[in-house]
Amino acid sequence: MYPILEDLRIVECASFIAAPSCALHLQQLGAEVIRIDPIGGGMDHARWPVAGDGRSLYWEGLNKGKRSVAIDLSRPEGRQLAVELITAPGPDAGLFVTNYPQQGFLSHEALSAHRPDLVTVRVLGWRSGAPAVDYTVNAAIGLPFMTGSADQGEAPVNHVLPAWDLLTGAYAAFALLAAERRRTRTGQGQEVSLALSDVALASLGHMGQIAEVLQSGDRPRYGNALFGAFGRDFRSADGEHVMLVAITSRQWTGLVESLDLQAPVAALEATLGVSFKADEGQRFIHREALFPLFERAVGALPLPELRARFEARGVLWSTYQTLSAAIAQDPRLSLDTPLFAMLDHPSGLRYPAPGAAATFGGAERTPVRRAPRLGEHTDEVLAEVLALSPTRIGQLHDAGLIASA
Amino acid sequence: MYPILEDLRIVECASFIAAPSCALHLQQLGAEVIRIDPIGGGMDHARWPVAGDGRSLYWEGLNKGKRSVAIDLSRPEGRQLAVELITAPGPDAGLFVTNYPQQGFLSHEALSAHRPDLVTVRVLGWRSGAPAVDYTVNAAIGLPFMTGSADQGEAPVNHVLPAWDLLTGAYAAFALLAAERRRTRTGQGQEVSLALSDVALASLGHMGQIAEVLQSGDRPRYGNALFGAFGRDFRSADGEHVMLVAITSRQWTGLVESLDLQAPVAALEATLGVSFKADEGQRFIHREALFPLFERAVGALPLPELRARFEARGVLWSTYQTLSAAIAQDPRLSLDTPLFAMLDHPSGLRYPAPGAAATFGGAERTPVRRAPRLGEHTDEVLAEVLALSPTRIGQLHDAGLIASA
Repeated sequence: MYPILEDLRIVECASFIAAPSCALHLQQLGAEVIRIDPIGGGMDHARWPVAGDGRSLYWEGLNKGKRSVAIDLSRPEGRQLAVELITAPGPDAGLFVTNYPQQGFLSHEALSAHRPDLVTVRVLGWRSGAPAVDYTVNAAIGLPFMTGSADQGEAPVNHVLPAWDLLTGAYAAFALLAAERRRTRTGQGQEVSLALSDVALASLGHMGQIAEVLQSGDRPRYGNALFGAFGRDFRSADGEHVMLVAITSRQWTGLVESLDLQAPVAALEATLGVSFKADEGQRFIHREALFPLFERAVGALPLPELRARFEARGVLWSTYQTLSAAIAQDPRLSLDTPLFAMLDHPSGLRYPAPGAAATFGGAERTPVRRAPRLGEHTDEVLAEVLALSPTRIGQLHDAGLIASA
Repeated sequence: MYPILEDLRIVECASFIAAPSCALHLQQLGAEVIRIDPIGGGMDHARWPVAGDGRSLYWEGLNKGKRSVAIDLSRPEGRQLAVELITAPGPDAGLFVTNYPQQGFLSHEALSAHRPDLVTVRVLGWRSGAPAVDYTVNAAIGLPFMTGSADQGEAPVNHVLPAWDLLTGAYAAFALLAAERRRTRTGQGQEVSLALSDVALASLGHMGQIAEVLQSGDRPRYGNALFGAFGRDFRSADGEHVMLVAITSRQWTGLVESLDLQAPVAALEATLGVSFKADEGQRFIHREALFPLFERAVGALPLPELRARFEARGVLWSTYQTLSAAIAQDPRLSLDTPLFAMLDHPSGLRYPAPGAAATFGGAERTPVRRAPRLGEHTDEVLAEVLALSPTRIGQLHDAGLIASA
């Protein structure tokens, strides 16, 4: 936790990745995050991956450092408690992150009746509010028909990284700070709505892909080839897979020289009447002529020799490796860095957990905190934030309206 | 542009997706963004996709609404101009976004000598500062060995979406606002460093995948199956691909009922001694037993019939469709929405361009602005921000230190 946002208090009613990761990002820069769940856990409480005993490693990853409050949200009295927590006073409180339905007791309209300057950040699936998850949005937007090699016919290839979820979470954290900044200056709260599908559509638009499809039609499958410049996987003499990329002229020159390909590349340029150095697009247009040169050159050398050559010339490259090899053997991806802290987690497992991805110079990086057990902070949050007495908290327990870990 | 961040002024010296999209997100909430490029354009000036005349649709997508200043950055006088723009006074200025090298004239140390409260957000490839791009980071972190079907052997499958770039850009915008917020309260500037590789590692950690790999080893390829619950692509009687997902109990029940699969699913549960409704993980463990039931049921019905059944029960699903079909035919992804504005772009093409993905209730969404032509605002920015006289600006042109569009 950084002392960057330490005066902020966020309340989260959310599940899965996008909205919980938004609040996680805020927590990891120092904000207090109170996550409210139904008694027994929300929809994501058992999401895989899980530990041997079934405890969710996903849940304890996405809720690190948050305070957990468990309330029976199916009953009016429980809902009232949640509303009171969300709209509790304080100049740096009144910040709410959710992916619960727009209508009902957690609507911004209903909540802001209790606190007019409330900022609500609401993650949606489709922009209409209809439910969607990363994998249904991704199917709908066409990327699975662009992924993989052309020879697999028309079968879609799903991504395994829920990129739209993660991106929506980070953008939501940005949007929350923007709305909070405006509130500080104007006194006005507002609801910020952010749909996974709009994030996907805007992202493709920002990268020029909507202009492209309107002009040229759908991008076909290019396998592992980088679109529009030089890049692909190649295989070394000792069977390792390497990704090579050359977008700038300097990257291209360094790559060609590293593999002693100046002569055949120059011959190809003369034949075709193009300059691969001057025009990155020509490297893509003529990739089927270029790739065999690189296949032979890379395939003739073992990885240690390739590594030495690539590093000597600053080539943009990487081996392909498994995640386990990455964290165990690659110093660039080592967990032995201030980004990670070794912690005991609610699952009972002990493993390194990441803090904020960014490093803020001039601010102390304080230890990453484990996720709570469900309801671990119910009593103390109700006492602190709503000033409920021990007697009143006991009554709520007796009525089954709240639960503690 | 929203009137949310309209008092902020950002200077960007950057290329490609991550850092430019950071500044784009800020611009699309109202900030002024001045992008400084070398005369003739930066490394991303010709990045594909391109229009027929070679103009980059990518560049004009990622730089919408920014003001463009072109300076000869290879000469000391040009570098001095850039430093003056970056460190110009003003309480809401002194915000700098870059992916240029850490060392040299754009180092935070050198810049903050001119403006001690400068906030620099620096996007890195590897955390050491060594260069990397999305596709080399992604190769190194193992996802290409998890993507696609097991029967393709050990060949890596690259993602086609530069997810780490996009995520780093959104997170960088969040980090910039966090640092600016701290500066408002403490008067202190700082450098925020954000490596693509740390974003990737932290993201996998947040989702439980580092705990998973340490506990269970590398996740194999599961094809298009959703990890840990029920989900996969299926094919309708009329040959359409659909993605079906069921994570919650309610989603599962709705899906099973929509396809009249209650009896065979119950029989399978009895045989296996499990409850698919109660335990989402069992749906994954026994997916090879479940999938044939769904293949037959989906394969027996044409898409219109499936659509009616799925919609009646709120099933989490989508057709797979191409991007061109998505924007032309799917109302959920239509460009005819306030998120997009029809604009004339520097390429000469006219097409709809996206604004901010989020919708801020209670704030006006004003029109999206096209990207600048390179150097379009050189003269006016130097006059406004540095108060240079027309005579001085003329001298800089004569010396070849600046260029205008």
